[in-house]
Amino acid sequence: MASNWEEFYSSHPQPANLNKDEDLLRDFCARHLNGDTRVVLVTSGGTTVPLEHNTVRFVDNFSAGTRGSSSTEYFLDRGYAVVFMHRHLFTKYVKSLFMPRDVKKKYRQILGFRVKSLQPFSRHFSGQKFLNMLDLNETKDGTSITVTSENVPRIADVLRKYKSALECGKLLELSFTTVYEYLWLLRSACQILAPLAERCILYLAAAVSDFYIPPNEMSVHKIASTKPQTISLQLVPKILAPLVSLWVPNAFVVSFKLETNKDLLIDKAREALNKYKHKLVIANMLQNYRKKVTMVTQQNSYVIELTTEQSNAGEEIEMYIVKNVVDKHEEFIADRSGKS
Amino acid sequence: MASNWEEFYSSHPQPANLNKDEDLLRDFCARHLNGDTRVVLVTSGGTTVPLEHNTVRFVDNFSAGTRGSSSTEYFLDRGYAVVFMHRHLFTKYVKSLFMPRDVKKKYRQILGFRVKSLQPFSRHFSGQKFLNMLDLNETKDGTSITVTSENVPRIADVLRKYKSALECGKLLELSFTTVYEYLWLLRSACQILAPLAERCILYLAAAVSDFYIPPNEMSVHKIASTKPQTISLQLVPKILAPLVSLWVPNAFVVSFKLETNKDLLIDKAREALNKYKHKLVIANMLQNYRKKVTMVTQQNSYVIELTTEQSNAGEEIEMYIVKNVVDKHEEFIADRSGKS
Repeated sequence: MASNWEEFYSSHPQPANLNKDEDLLRDFCARHLNGDTRVVLVTSGGTTVPLEHNTVRFVDNFSAGTRGSSSTEYFLDRGYAVVFMHRHLFTKYVKSLFMPRDVKKKYRQILGFRVKSLQPFSRHFSGQKFLNMLDLNETKDGTSITVTSENVPRIADVLRKYKSALECGKLLELSFTTVYEYLWLLRSACQILAPLAERCILYLAAAVSDFYIPPNEMSVHKIASTKPQTISLQLVPKILAPLVSLWVPNAFVVSFKLETNKDLLIDKAREALNKYKHKLVIANMLQNYRKKVTMVTQQNSYVIELTTEQSNAGEEIEMYIVKNVVDKHEEFIADRSGKS
Repeated sequence: MASNWEEFYSSHPQPANLNKDEDLLRDFCARHLNGDTRVVLVTSGGTTVPLEHNTVRFVDNFSAGTRGSSSTEYFLDRGYAVVFMHRHLFTKYVKSLFMPRDVKKKYRQILGFRVKSLQPFSRHFSGQKFLNMLDLNETKDGTSITVTSENVPRIADVLRKYKSALECGKLLELSFTTVYEYLWLLRSACQILAPLAERCILYLAAAVSDFYIPPNEMSVHKIASTKPQTISLQLVPKILAPLVSLWVPNAFVVSFKLETNKDLLIDKAREALNKYKHKLVIANMLQNYRKKVTMVTQQNSYVIELTTEQSNAGEEIEMYIVKNVVDKHEEFIADRSGKS
């Protein structure tokens, strides 16, 4: 049965560079295992489902990675070490596309993709805004480039936090593109982070595809545009089930629920909690996800919403979401230690 | 019949902010109409086909926008004025999604998308590379931020060209996301640029979807992930036909052909030239498009390929492609003026 997670993994071979990512994860985990640093795995951005083995077209999910990248900054602010698992716009190495090894190698050398979903810190300066912030000073003594004075305070603040996160070894960034890469990397990350037990949060903000095309039904080459096409999509297994019950049974697991129809939102969130037995669903509507979320727990549900003043002042809802999650995590740890 | 371009336009209403883009195009065109500046319209990046009216999922085409964004820089180097029509990662304003005006307005206020396909100049500094190039200097006299000395030469060069393009009014950037937005904007741009006649190049590097889902077959809300799905895709009309014969009959039109199977590549390019009667097809394989292209004209075809030395030195194939296109454009203008 295609919706079974074990069968899904066994029919989609391990991505080529998973071992490298696992090594990075093990180093990161070892650095934080002794001590009391709290750790969060943040997933961010959408996943792709290729329509062709030589992928020209794919089915994609809505996500710029705003939620995940900004939350990462706020978790760092609160002292957490963060594994930031984010989306590359295109498959880095065409590594999961089931090709002969020599063809993959060829692709790997050739394709130099540089566009991604938003990343913490750099997210504040995407596109040409960055170039507009720079002054070119050409004198007889040489050329220098400085950030224009009005932009210094804001950039200095971001730069300070970015450099500090790197220096403390508190930020590890890993990437995925396809839903296959995402699922493989997520399982590895869970297995490696599991020893952190209740000190670890899983903050699953990525917009993961619910559908996929089985490899044996995919076209090898670009589909010719000579006639209408029908695409059959199968269900991706719901990975929260093994994640909560088997992979990180002692961690604090937070999932997200995005809907476009508000009548379904809370029921769907509650349904997920009942089914997977994790701690928290952060439910949001596509139409206003930057301003309003509903926190749904086993016990209750409540709304976090930015006021117009907060929005106008440039505040981000993720600051409040993360504060809330950190408080809940604190209680959870206290509960587990029998201190409360 | 769905493959008819007139019917396609009449069944997909004009995007909300098309008028604004048309005003910008008219200003740009007026600035360059008197004089002898040559003008190129570069299209870049992929298009999306939403699967839902409230779009969470979409079908996408492979394209980081490398070809279009780098070619734009080389056209500016050669003195051309450039309209750079590029892809926003997500629909800016959900403007083509056939919703009631008040719902659209709501989206427009809320969604602040900032991730795009590559743009000229800023493409050299995407992601966190930019933050790694900055030094933070905090002294008692205050804080300043400078570009690290080893990065000054490269950034200075890019910054000089970027500021010069803006100051001369030689670069106009417009954006699209869905295939509907792309087709509407392309037609408007052609109609406004048409008076430039043979002084104008159309350099159609965008990866435009060949398929779409008719609005009346689209789901209104996010498709539930409870059972497998089938998506029926219709053919997008081949827009080169009216473009070449009706919209810009005197311009120098260049199209691109991407394939993954090399046995089809040149035949497909030749077939397009015979069908649409334009001037040049630049044919490339997904596997090596950064290193090798075949220029296919009515008369002949020849290969442009980077040597290993050129690649290692960081040269880009777009420099050679643009040089070649500019030479051909020169000949074309001379022919038309009866000077050759």
